[in-house]
Amino acid sequence: MQAEILCIGTELLIGQTVNTNATWLARELALLGIDLHLVTTVGDNFARLQACLAAAASRADLVICTGGLGPTADDITVEAIARWLGEPLAERPEEVERIAGMMARRGRQLSALDRKQALFPPSATLLPNPWGTASGLSVERAGCTLMAFPGVPRELEAMWHGTALPWLAACATATIRSHLLRFVGLREAELAERVADLMEGQNPTVAPYAHDGEVHLRLTAKAGSEAEAEALLSPILSEIARRLGRHCFGEGATTLPAAIGERLRARGEWVSTAESCTGGLLASRLTDVPGASRWFASGAIPYSDAQKAELLGVDPELVRVHGAVSPDVAEAMATAVRQRIPASWGVGITGYAGGDPPGEQDGLVYVGISGPSGTWHREFRFTGYPRERVKWFAANSALAELWSALRDRT
Amino acid sequence: MQAEILCIGTELLIGQTVNTNATWLARELALLGIDLHLVTTVGDNFARLQACLAAAASRADLVICTGGLGPTADDITVEAIARWLGEPLAERPEEVERIAGMMARRGRQLSALDRKQALFPPSATLLPNPWGTASGLSVERAGCTLMAFPGVPRELEAMWHGTALPWLAACATATIRSHLLRFVGLREAELAERVADLMEGQNPTVAPYAHDGEVHLRLTAKAGSEAEAEALLSPILSEIARRLGRHCFGEGATTLPAAIGERLRARGEWVSTAESCTGGLLASRLTDVPGASRWFASGAIPYSDAQKAELLGVDPELVRVHGAVSPDVAEAMATAVRQRIPASWGVGITGYAGGDPPGEQDGLVYVGISGPSGTWHREFRFTGYPRERVKWFAANSALAELWSALRDRT
Repeated sequence: MQAEILCIGTELLIGQTVNTNATWLARELALLGIDLHLVTTVGDNFARLQACLAAAASRADLVICTGGLGPTADDITVEAIARWLGEPLAERPEEVERIAGMMARRGRQLSALDRKQALFPPSATLLPNPWGTASGLSVERAGCTLMAFPGVPRELEAMWHGTALPWLAACATATIRSHLLRFVGLREAELAERVADLMEGQNPTVAPYAHDGEVHLRLTAKAGSEAEAEALLSPILSEIARRLGRHCFGEGATTLPAAIGERLRARGEWVSTAESCTGGLLASRLTDVPGASRWFASGAIPYSDAQKAELLGVDPELVRVHGAVSPDVAEAMATAVRQRIPASWGVGITGYAGGDPPGEQDGLVYVGISGPSGTWHREFRFTGYPRERVKWFAANSALAELWSALRDRT
Repeated sequence: MQAEILCIGTELLIGQTVNTNATWLARELALLGIDLHLVTTVGDNFARLQACLAAAASRADLVICTGGLGPTADDITVEAIARWLGEPLAERPEEVERIAGMMARRGRQLSALDRKQALFPPSATLLPNPWGTASGLSVERAGCTLMAFPGVPRELEAMWHGTALPWLAACATATIRSHLLRFVGLREAELAERVADLMEGQNPTVAPYAHDGEVHLRLTAKAGSEAEAEALLSPILSEIARRLGRHCFGEGATTLPAAIGERLRARGEWVSTAESCTGGLLASRLTDVPGASRWFASGAIPYSDAQKAELLGVDPELVRVHGAVSPDVAEAMATAVRQRIPASWGVGITGYAGGDPPGEQDGLVYVGISGPSGTWHREFRFTGYPRERVKWFAANSALAELWSALRDRT
């Protein structure tokens, strides 16, 4: 079954409303194994809506419309559907009664505009709306089923579950199952190269994405049942684990800080942080994890050379000789914070986030790690990025380094 | 000028990613006075993308494409555009060099996949990408201008401002001038009430927005020239300044941390921070500002009760008697950090960010401020929000309180 979504409403075309309905419906269709080919957003314009309806219906087996079912003059979806069907609009007495009843319960009179919501093409099956006055509708023509829902998300979602989902589940011949694997220490292009052969498969499909300093792989299988879909996924998941498992820190919604917290808790260990160029961002990301107080000791943000000595006890001579942005100072910050704020692991970050005035070294960052079995550093160059991105990448690289250390080191 | 947006990427059609780019672009086009007729979302499928490109170009004067410019095999936008133009793809040596340079600065080799991003149809004008490897492109055919941008929002937005916006502004017959005023210490509804009469005007329009703990007013005027548009705006700006100027911390891209930095510099003063529940987020936001080292002294993140005493010197008895989350401890943290990390101003934050397990007090936050003329606190309740949002609102409230103090206090 091939589907299209048609979102109707001028508010979507002037950037007033984010189209979360399209995303929500797309996910619902994916879970049912229905291929979604296109999402079109059109305003409250009769001619353009007509053209979009006719085009979608000519291409797809299923067209899901959202929006434009309300009482005001710019709600034109039902009229456009009637025109496409070649049917007149006729009032449904039971709908007039239902809407009048809802109005009465709110202490209101039925207005002419309210009554407009009782007009439907005769061949339409109505989809009851538990939350609002506007019913949805389902019609069929020339092998295409078209369903129309209100644009209000909670009405759409309730009506989808109550009407469309049971009908579609009965029609559906396939189920879709998806796994999202999250990696660090690899670029998107490297990841893609190492699973290039797996990406050629059609079922499951394997697709890489880069996102905010991480790379992801999404595996999606389509089969007659959940169990069959998982059976298709299982060998590919094993093969990816064999090739890249070392770099995979989690699945689904797992974040890198959460993966670190899990490892620290499993080891009964703590981490403390000393940040110069990231200015607290590393500690903030770690403390985004619920329960972080069970493995995050505390942090320091010694932004000046003087405070590197005062807050942490870093030897001022070291800063004078090597400079504040140096491998030696990154390691000294990691060691010092681990002693000053007692913890199994200390992380130090120093670098040029970039700024005012811009400098040639902007983007140069050193991450120091001090752990039970030693102290080391890594150098990074996030050249050409704005200040906030340098901070983000620096914090993320420190997280990746710490996660790898918790994987490899005792 | 009639425009369409074409968003390309299977992740949008399986419901993985919310299409915020479409909303952002729609708003940008609206501000320019360009009519947006349709937004179409299509997956990484060559035939369907081709059909969408041709259809959009046949209807619109301007087609904005996003997504599908990356290095992997499913990034097919440039190839589809070349096919639509009837041109072959040719490698641009200067692009190969630029991408290789970016890779080299990050200590990486140029791979075959990276190199794919240097292939373009010969007639295309490239749109430089300040943050990523994939350039965008602009082409013209049969009266339609087509521009393609990456799907990564920050790259799209930077490239839009750098390339598309100046070009479109030059084409536009009417000029649109817009001012964004940023406020703290007011809710959106309060702000709207106090400018209700101004919101009735058609030119300029005055519209309030709430965004991430701030409230904004956007004033937009349309006229034959910039000077005429500014002349329309000027009396309204004055009237808003008269009514609400006290609460306005800046215009346009000015951030609250930047406004704080400006005031501190003007006063020749410094700030230091002590954060428990925000875990470094306040300091991170302050250090997002270029040149922050000229007014941000340093920070501490005493996450445990013990470290409130060790790192800051807060009296353990105070924590024992009042509890770590209390007005007294917030004030003590502010005073202690201002002494320990010498600065004119100290900010202390303590609270329940919420979590594991959830508690009834989640969202309760105390912000302490210690300045040249005294020490005080404020209580906030961000009940019902997830942990990351509580942290965000808490840091933002501390920023707002500090900014107000720098406005009012000596």
